[in-house]
Amino acid sequence: MKTYYLRIHEKDNVAIAIHAISKGTDLGSGIVTKSEIPQGHKLALVDIPKDGPVYRYGVVLGYALSDIQSGEWINENSLRLPIPPDLENMQYGVNIVDRLPKAPVTTFEGYPCGPDGYAGTRNILAIHTTVQCVTGVLNVAVKRIKEELLPKYPNVDGVVPINHAYGCGVAIDAPQAKIPIRALQNLIWNPNFGGEIMCVALGCEKLTADKLLGEYNTPENVVVLQECHGFAAMIDAIMMMAEKKLAKLDKRRRVTLPLSRLCIGMQCGGSDAFSGVTANPSAGYAADMLVQAGATVMFSEVTEVRDGVHLIGERCTNERVCKKLAGEMRWYDSYLQNGCVDRSANPTPGNKKGGLSNIMEKAMGSIAKSGTSPIVEVLSPAERPTQHGMIYAATPASDIVCGPCQLSSGITLQVFMPGRGTPYGLAAAPVIKVCSRTDMKDQWPDLIDINAGPIATGDATIEEIGTKLFEEIIAVASGKKESYAEKYRLHNDYCIFNPAPIT
Amino acid sequence: MKTYYLRIHEKDNVAIAIHAISKGTDLGSGIVTKSEIPQGHKLALVDIPKDGPVYRYGVVLGYALSDIQSGEWINENSLRLPIPPDLENMQYGVNIVDRLPKAPVTTFEGYPCGPDGYAGTRNILAIHTTVQCVTGVLNVAVKRIKEELLPKYPNVDGVVPINHAYGCGVAIDAPQAKIPIRALQNLIWNPNFGGEIMCVALGCEKLTADKLLGEYNTPENVVVLQECHGFAAMIDAIMMMAEKKLAKLDKRRRVTLPLSRLCIGMQCGGSDAFSGVTANPSAGYAADMLVQAGATVMFSEVTEVRDGVHLIGERCTNERVCKKLAGEMRWYDSYLQNGCVDRSANPTPGNKKGGLSNIMEKAMGSIAKSGTSPIVEVLSPAERPTQHGMIYAATPASDIVCGPCQLSSGITLQVFMPGRGTPYGLAAAPVIKVCSRTDMKDQWPDLIDINAGPIATGDATIEEIGTKLFEEIIAVASGKKESYAEKYRLHNDYCIFNPAPIT
Repeated sequence: MKTYYLRIHEKDNVAIAIHAISKGTDLGSGIVTKSEIPQGHKLALVDIPKDGPVYRYGVVLGYALSDIQSGEWINENSLRLPIPPDLENMQYGVNIVDRLPKAPVTTFEGYPCGPDGYAGTRNILAIHTTVQCVTGVLNVAVKRIKEELLPKYPNVDGVVPINHAYGCGVAIDAPQAKIPIRALQNLIWNPNFGGEIMCVALGCEKLTADKLLGEYNTPENVVVLQECHGFAAMIDAIMMMAEKKLAKLDKRRRVTLPLSRLCIGMQCGGSDAFSGVTANPSAGYAADMLVQAGATVMFSEVTEVRDGVHLIGERCTNERVCKKLAGEMRWYDSYLQNGCVDRSANPTPGNKKGGLSNIMEKAMGSIAKSGTSPIVEVLSPAERPTQHGMIYAATPASDIVCGPCQLSSGITLQVFMPGRGTPYGLAAAPVIKVCSRTDMKDQWPDLIDINAGPIATGDATIEEIGTKLFEEIIAVASGKKESYAEKYRLHNDYCIFNPAPIT
Repeated sequence: MKTYYLRIHEKDNVAIAIHAISKGTDLGSGIVTKSEIPQGHKLALVDIPKDGPVYRYGVVLGYALSDIQSGEWINENSLRLPIPPDLENMQYGVNIVDRLPKAPVTTFEGYPCGPDGYAGTRNILAIHTTVQCVTGVLNVAVKRIKEELLPKYPNVDGVVPINHAYGCGVAIDAPQAKIPIRALQNLIWNPNFGGEIMCVALGCEKLTADKLLGEYNTPENVVVLQECHGFAAMIDAIMMMAEKKLAKLDKRRRVTLPLSRLCIGMQCGGSDAFSGVTANPSAGYAADMLVQAGATVMFSEVTEVRDGVHLIGERCTNERVCKKLAGEMRWYDSYLQNGCVDRSANPTPGNKKGGLSNIMEKAMGSIAKSGTSPIVEVLSPAERPTQHGMIYAATPASDIVCGPCQLSSGITLQVFMPGRGTPYGLAAAPVIKVCSRTDMKDQWPDLIDINAGPIATGDATIEEIGTKLFEEIIAVASGKKESYAEKYRLHNDYCIFNPAPIT
């Protein structure tokens, strides 16, 4: 008989439609669809009474708002959200998996950045900025640098201006200002930038070059526009400094390094109901392989793990890590509350259209991308890691804010599950896109790097796609392959996370 | 005797140094400097006892933290901030000036935009976006549009992608979300865009194309990336739509219009102690001339008027306007308080280095750019005006956020007083820069359009520079002249004001 639906856990009383199912279709076991079920959406496998629990992934997604018949469509209007997991008494260390899938290779070709730190996957000249005010001038200069200087330095992959909305007109002493400031400070040390520091400052901004760079605020590293005699002199000064930095970066060479020198990020965006079944578990499998081989993998997105945070807590290796996890969740709960919203503000129209009824269901899928590895560290937004292995880096779930936060935490490559499809990219690191449905790959053949869709139809396994993704990560990290986003130079702005007021 | 200092009001017990003054200089009237006084900084003209009021502009800037001797330097460490003006009982209508300086001309050459609305000063194809996710693709397309299409349409001045950090990963139903949404909705109708609507959407974002565009969400106006079959198809679709819009815009012609069809904005940034004496009063004089001739002029920056808001209240033409003014101030007080800061978060290191001791002193200078005209309307951030004349458009004081807010309110040109120097610019409207000191013009000769510095040394009057600025505004608005920012294509990002949480 044809496989119409996908049930994940033996406890589940709902399943998702692999393709759209017409009304009145006999699915076997006495289940007949009561209406059309859109692709990826849930249908009841049994009768569920009003207030009865609806199970998917073996967890309660919510409670039925009215009686639900077997074969009925279940969507965001059918469920009441369960209360979120308690943060006070989270268990830790009770789900420490020590048998991870073995990585087929244990090295990659990276750009060393210091004798033992993480290595770069690309060789990029980053031009940092203290403040948005300098953006106009810097963009003019960067255009000329790319045209006139970069071709002379063939070992440099690109020039990236770090334009951001921070730096002045902000409450720089507000308690939460530490987040954007830390993000900009830590970004400087992203291994893809090779430790070469170049910054354009204005001269009267709140985020002074001293505050941003500390001891590295020297005339060799910083062009101060107010000290330049006019526009032409500004462009000259920026280009002259850029050329010196390019000459140094051009000497960098890839070498074979153990995977312990690789740090990557995982992110998903625009998720649908397949994300948690195909793309995200494949990413999780690849993540486990990387961790097994000594690499560091970060996953993030607070509002998308909040409802399943107890599952992350159980994987934390010690109490300190688990307590920090709870602290990050608590901070975000209160941040949302300050703005008069709660975690239900997360799911998007696209998520819902894709079959995700609420944030609980989205969370279960989201967490799948972290695999099963023990969680060795939790980072506040944009902090740098001190441990190797699987790390929870707390960030907003917004794709365009999570990416920059992870870059500040030091990722040199990102794996991105685009769900219903986003052409997302980062200027400072390659992004590999893994889609959850074959339809998506068919629609965007030249934007999706890996298709995890065949898992839903039984035409591939999580292990197979996960291994393929692992190999893709190594190839892209080693510079043997470009992802599509990189090939087309698709990248989003550097959208900084600033929870403090502007003035 | 040499003029060392500038005293503004007869009540003032302090004055500012026109140039740096050495320690021990005899300034006449028994005043001898007790230390070096940096340029633009205040010196005491008489002995001021501890807790005594320090007057500048005839108002209390603050209270002496310790005894101050005649000839002593007064800076941000010398003063205690006065309590801000009471918002509950502000007077209105008690300072309605009806004799404004007469404008030398009463027409300009603008691009009509509808039969009687404000007219454009430029003819620009704006490509709006629902969400940051589309930025990467749009930027690739815009580069090609500029290279391949724009040269075929010589009457179009430029193509501007409206890339912003909003649209998804945000709490779209939060009470304050109305501000960024309104900003994006209203920006579409900026007269510089000629009423031609083009938008790039993703397809699963929270800020749907319907929400952004309403009835204008049609296949003729919107490219939805998720509906395109791959990257190449996206670029083709965007370029095809852009060409149709360019062809229409290319037919626009300037015509002679009354100044009632002109709407401009005033802004200052990086202010120093001269801003309130030279550049801002000159801008205020030009603003009064414009208002006299029927034009609309907006000024903004809540935290920079908060401490002198009673002076704006007195100029409000009726109670409703004054009450809305108080409401905007109250909203911002509470917004800052939520972030655990207050209005003292505003002044920057550059302001202080430039001689501005606190937000009170900055406010007095800031308000000067609004001239003396009656205030006929107060707008919440990014609202569109319903009245002609002088309007207070409440926005953050951050240059890079105020500019986009004013564009959404419909300005087609901005006058910007860059204080200590910022190469600020807007992509969607020309920006004319007026500096406060001759030193600034000398330092940035090819970025400063008008130098108000000679006013400080008695070599020019506010009326002269104000009239010159008026003429510059008319010339630039009429397309007879480019400002420097426009000439070099210097512009900042479209930094949206989003006081609501991201998710």
